Amino acid sequence: MVADGLQNINLLDLKNSFNLKDISLELYQLVSDLYPLCRSITGDGFRETLKILQQHIPLSVHEVPTGTEVFDWTIPKEWNIKDAYIKNSQGKKIVDFTNSNLHVVNYSIPVHQKLSLQELKLHLFTLPEHPDWIPYRTSYYKESWGFCLSHNQYLQLNDEEYEVCIDSSLEPGYLTYGEYFIPGESSDEVLISCHTCHPSLCNDNLSGIAIATFIAKYLSQTTSRYSYRFLWIPGTIGSITWLALNEAKVNNIKHGLVLTCLGDSGKFTYKKSRKANTEIDKVAAYVLTNSKQDYEIIDFFPYGYDERQYCSPGFNLAVGCLMRSPHGSFPEYHTSADDLNFVQPQYLAESFLQCHSMLYILNNNEIYYNKNPKCEPQLGKRGIYRVTGGHKDSELNQMAILWVLNLSDGDHTLLDIAQRSGISFDLIKNAADILLAHDLLKK
Amino acid sequence: MVADGLQNINLLDLKNSFNLKDISLELYQLVSDLYPLCRSITGDGFRETLKILQQHIPLSVHEVPTGTEVFDWTIPKEWNIKDAYIKNSQGKKIVDFTNSNLHVVNYSIPVHQKLSLQELKLHLFTLPEHPDWIPYRTSYYKESWGFCLSHNQYLQLNDEEYEVCIDSSLEPGYLTYGEYFIPGESSDEVLISCHTCHPSLCNDNLSGIAIATFIAKYLSQTTSRYSYRFLWIPGTIGSITWLALNEAKVNNIKHGLVLTCLGDSGKFTYKKSRKANTEIDKVAAYVLTNSKQDYEIIDFFPYGYDERQYCSPGFNLAVGCLMRSPHGSFPEYHTSADDLNFVQPQYLAESFLQCHSMLYILNNNEIYYNKNPKCEPQLGKRGIYRVTGGHKDSELNQMAILWVLNLSDGDHTLLDIAQRSGISFDLIKNAADILLAHDLLKK
Amino acid sequence: MVADGLQNINLLDLKNSFNLKDISLELYQLVSDLYPLCRSITGDGFRETLKILQQHIPLSVHEVPTGTEVFDWTIPKEWNIKDAYIKNSQGKKIVDFTNSNLHVVNYSIPVHQKLSLQELKLHLFTLPEHPDWIPYRTSYYKESWGFCLSHNQYLQLNDEEYEVCIDSSLEPGYLTYGEYFIPGESSDEVLISCHTCHPSLCNDNLSGIAIATFIAKYLSQTTSRYSYRFLWIPGTIGSITWLALNEAKVNNIKHGLVLTCLGDSGKFTYKKSRKANTEIDKVAAYVLTNSKQDYEIIDFFPYGYDERQYCSPGFNLAVGCLMRSPHGSFPEYHTSADDLNFVQPQYLAESFLQCHSMLYILNNNEIYYNKNPKCEPQLGKRGIYRVTGGHKDSELNQMAILWVLNLSDGDHTLLDIAQRSGISFDLIKNAADILLAHDLLKK
Repeated sequence: MVADGLQNINLLDLKNSFNLKDISLELYQLVSDLYPLCRSITGDGFRETLKILQQHIPLSVHEVPTGTEVFDWTIPKEWNIKDAYIKNSQGKKIVDFTNSNLHVVNYSIPVHQKLSLQELKLHLFTLPEHPDWIPYRTSYYKESWGFCLSHNQYLQLNDEEYEVCIDSSLEPGYLTYGEYFIPGESSDEVLISCHTCHPSLCNDNLSGIAIATFIAKYLSQTTSRYSYRFLWIPGTIGSITWLALNEAKVNNIKHGLVLTCLGDSGKFTYKKSRKANTEIDKVAAYVLTNSKQDYEIIDFFPYGYDERQYCSPGFNLAVGCLMRSPHGSFPEYHTSADDLNFVQPQYLAESFLQCHSMLYILNNNEIYYNKNPKCEPQLGKRGIYRVTGGHKDSELNQMAILWVLNLSDGDHTLLDIAQRSGISFDLIKNAADILLAHDLLKK
Repeated sequence: MVADGLQNINLLDLKNSFNLKDISLELYQLVSDLYPLCRSITGDGFRETLKILQQHIPLSVHEVPTGTEVFDWTIPKEWNIKDAYIKNSQGKKIVDFTNSNLHVVNYSIPVHQKLSLQELKLHLFTLPEHPDWIPYRTSYYKESWGFCLSHNQYLQLNDEEYEVCIDSSLEPGYLTYGEYFIPGESSDEVLISCHTCHPSLCNDNLSGIAIATFIAKYLSQTTSRYSYRFLWIPGTIGSITWLALNEAKVNNIKHGLVLTCLGDSGKFTYKKSRKANTEIDKVAAYVLTNSKQDYEIIDFFPYGYDERQYCSPGFNLAVGCLMRSPHGSFPEYHTSADDLNFVQPQYLAESFLQCHSMLYILNNNEIYYNKNPKCEPQLGKRGIYRVTGGHKDSELNQMAILWVLNLSDGDHTLLDIAQRSGISFDLIKNAADILLAHDLLKK
Repeated sequence: MVADGLQNINLLDLKNSFNLKDISLELYQLVSDLYPLCRSITGDGFRETLKILQQHIPLSVHEVPTGTEVFDWTIPKEWNIKDAYIKNSQGKKIVDFTNSNLHVVNYSIPVHQKLSLQELKLHLFTLPEHPDWIPYRTSYYKESWGFCLSHNQYLQLNDEEYEVCIDSSLEPGYLTYGEYFIPGESSDEVLISCHTCHPSLCNDNLSGIAIATFIAKYLSQTTSRYSYRFLWIPGTIGSITWLALNEAKVNNIKHGLVLTCLGDSGKFTYKKSRKANTEIDKVAAYVLTNSKQDYEIIDFFPYGYDERQYCSPGFNLAVGCLMRSPHGSFPEYHTSADDLNFVQPQYLAESFLQCHSMLYILNNNEIYYNKNPKCEPQLGKRGIYRVTGGHKDSELNQMAILWVLNLSDGDHTLLDIAQRSGISFDLIKNAADILLAHDLLKK
């Protein structure tokens, strides 16, 4: 069924057309494969991540040199790290980067020195309210160094001399990002963007990366009305970079979704675009409303992920953000507890399906014209009017046909018709297909 | 008071200006007169119906030849029927058209033959859920024949040989419809349309026919701003025919009502036009809201009566549909139980009044201009400002005058002013009349 | 702080920037000073009132001759009164103008005669439902005379001969009004208007007069974006006169407030402008919504005070009306009970603050443009991005900065941004000031 293309998939049959169990395991496997890497906004961790994604899809890797000006910003130095630890006075590694890449404040400058507990503490970060968890901290735009550790371990530190070592480099290099473009029948694009700059954090970052990758993989096997552009970028600086270097392409982007936090058990959350009432906003609301799961639709606010940049006033793109539990709303956020237990295969698969449904409706949400707009055409002589009545399905199909004829005046998309009629998008789409086949409708 | 014309009727006095008892009996009498005729979408039953209506109003009869193309449709053959029966093996008429014209599937081709019970049953239709009622069935666009009977009778049929006879003809002829045009001060028209193609069915068909006839009779005795066009047509094919043959006149239709199902005891139902917020929609909502009776206002949907055609996207006229219980919502619908007991004189009269109120407000819902738009004019020196205060009525009149002055800026009709002020349309209309008389307002 | 000008006042600090106790006493003192004067729509009582106001602000006094035509109206004769009384047959003054100027029907023609109780009663007015109070009555546009007295006194009148004397004059003269114009950076004006024609009535008239005077006094010591025009005018004929004689200036009036009934203990009431959704309507709603006091916002209706004229269709100005208890809603209205006990210093001061807050927000409710509209500017390098997170206030400030950047696209005022973000106007204004200082925003 996949080979038939998005346009021929019946949404109601969608769950059947995918092997959900396979999808859920593949998504989870990709998250697991990416988990150990120490990503940052630049550096080899990002490059290795893209290499793993290239095992699934032939994405392009872009390298933007340090110092490149991108709007008000400048591409920073490239950061890489080989090792890091804290040894106690007995020479025992009590904090070890190889155990968790969260132990090092991301973008820490190199350091190797001995210092007292008092001096060390100025560089230590913990979460007293979750004493077993390691926090995730960064210092991208201010040169400094530090370690993160559990508060319980912190409390047990003895007043002795410590050796700290961060074997990192912060030097001119590149900002790396991944891009994958699937051409469609139209040059109009749908943008799918996910930040890819967090180290071992599963929900916030890896879930979106994995779902974007599999959506791309699926769409690459179909033919669609829209073109699709996928971006795996470092947060903030990555979208700014892409927008600055690709301004000529921005006008092609008609709709977009930022994907993140899609692997936990929370209900779905859709954050609207700044324009608030665009087609992607309507489609997302329609899919969530009809998903028979709990959900929340929230207004745009200029914080969060890269929708901040896509929706900045100079671009104001129709880009929303699809999440389950939003950033900051779950205690595991930006801690070592956002791990492979926090995300689960079935939640990833549900998110994949919701995202897919949105793209399916978007792609099929066309405007048609009734070729016989004056009065109803005689459906009976074409055999598409029920003759003897019938069961509820055929009545709905009949009504779907009448609604599509009545509202196909150039002002209503199929989704508009579905919403005004209260009939499902699939039946409306099906009715449009029947009417097209009988030459009663045109695009 | 009738002779003064619609424009001079005070709506509050409307019930008094009609002799409601007379009206209710006249309406019921007309329904009773029309009840026995075997109407169909063509044929002599339709012609005889129009002849009876001509005893009340001088409507024109139009005949459109079989084969005439009307948009996507073609005028069908004319159907007439003289007699029909089923005889049992003893030669006893067990089903007899002369007892009820519902016994024959409307538009049945002629047949005269003997057949077994088993063969006969393929042509019999009943209502198991209402075993005493005869269903109403048609087969306009597929040539066939059949009988309708009560389910109880059906169950008692013996396994014997039967003689069936339908003495009908289905031949080239005409589609007949009635039209009545009342010219007004303006060429802008209000359309009143009712389907007239059902045989002995009282609520669904005869109630609307009777009310349209008496509204026409009343309006013909008055002078109105609007012109009025009344149509008594076969459902679907009739409105399509009129629209196809009168396209040049369609632009004159500014407002319209389809009248049907107006004789039962149910609450009023107004189905909005496709545009949903036109003047007739506002007027109908206003009248029902202020009628102190239960009512329902429903959105347009492309099913029901001839509003389907008037509201097809190529015309998209401001035509709503006024009913009491809507088609399909009452069990008697399309059965022999929709009879002279199901409709009652007082319900017909109430419907007449609601319809009349809507037309009254529509006709008087003009836009005026305050001739002194800068500050209030000095009402006191003209004797139209209360001097010493007074009772509630005069205060309301005072406020009505101030509201009309304040909102007569070319953007507000009298109904807009009534709704914004919360003062009744009559008091607002009365205030406008006073201000016109004092040369403070102009049209 | 007053000397810094409105634009530099932080609304949250407003209560601190005023000495509320001083303000409340000053307002109440002015009301008390004005209370004894017998004002009317013309005459010396009005002139003396303006003289007292001139002790606070250098307002201009305008005199418009009797007979001047102002739109549909004519300036009436000037009315003055020296004394008035009713003596009983023993020559005792039982009703004495010097005790209360409400005793004489305002605009009574001169009279001096003897008459019977029966004759006298035709000229007496009382309030049976409040038998101790003296009603307030006028007869501006119909020459007559009369006395008002308590119903209890009325009931005790003996059947004897009475001497009535009204030592008034009704002669060609002038209509007097006060005007005070404070030029701002822009010629766009805010109009503050209050009727000043009622005699000893505190809430209905003196409260608005006093607050307008102190607002004017305060604004005269500041520099504002807007110019301000204050009018102390007789009700109805005064605003009609000003509008008729100053039509060329009307276009400068961008916003306005009619002030009245602002000294009682009732909740605040804002009556919207006729346009209903103008900036002053939004600002007033915002201030009341955020005032933590009960309030009511009511729609415009063409009755009440001079907003009737400002909002007549030929002008349709964005002028609302700020009150506490609206006219007619409190029993003391237009009676001797609307006295110095009915208004209280603290209520006057609260009203002053609400009015001031509205003018403050109006004055600062500008539209800015983000100078870096494509993506967010890098706040960190300018030191205006939080480095290590922080307490709630700094988070709000951070969000305020992001909101102002995101919505400063030329379509949103600061109030729009405050309302969409849910952040207080002050924080939004503060963020705009910071961004302006960093050259990230322009006007």
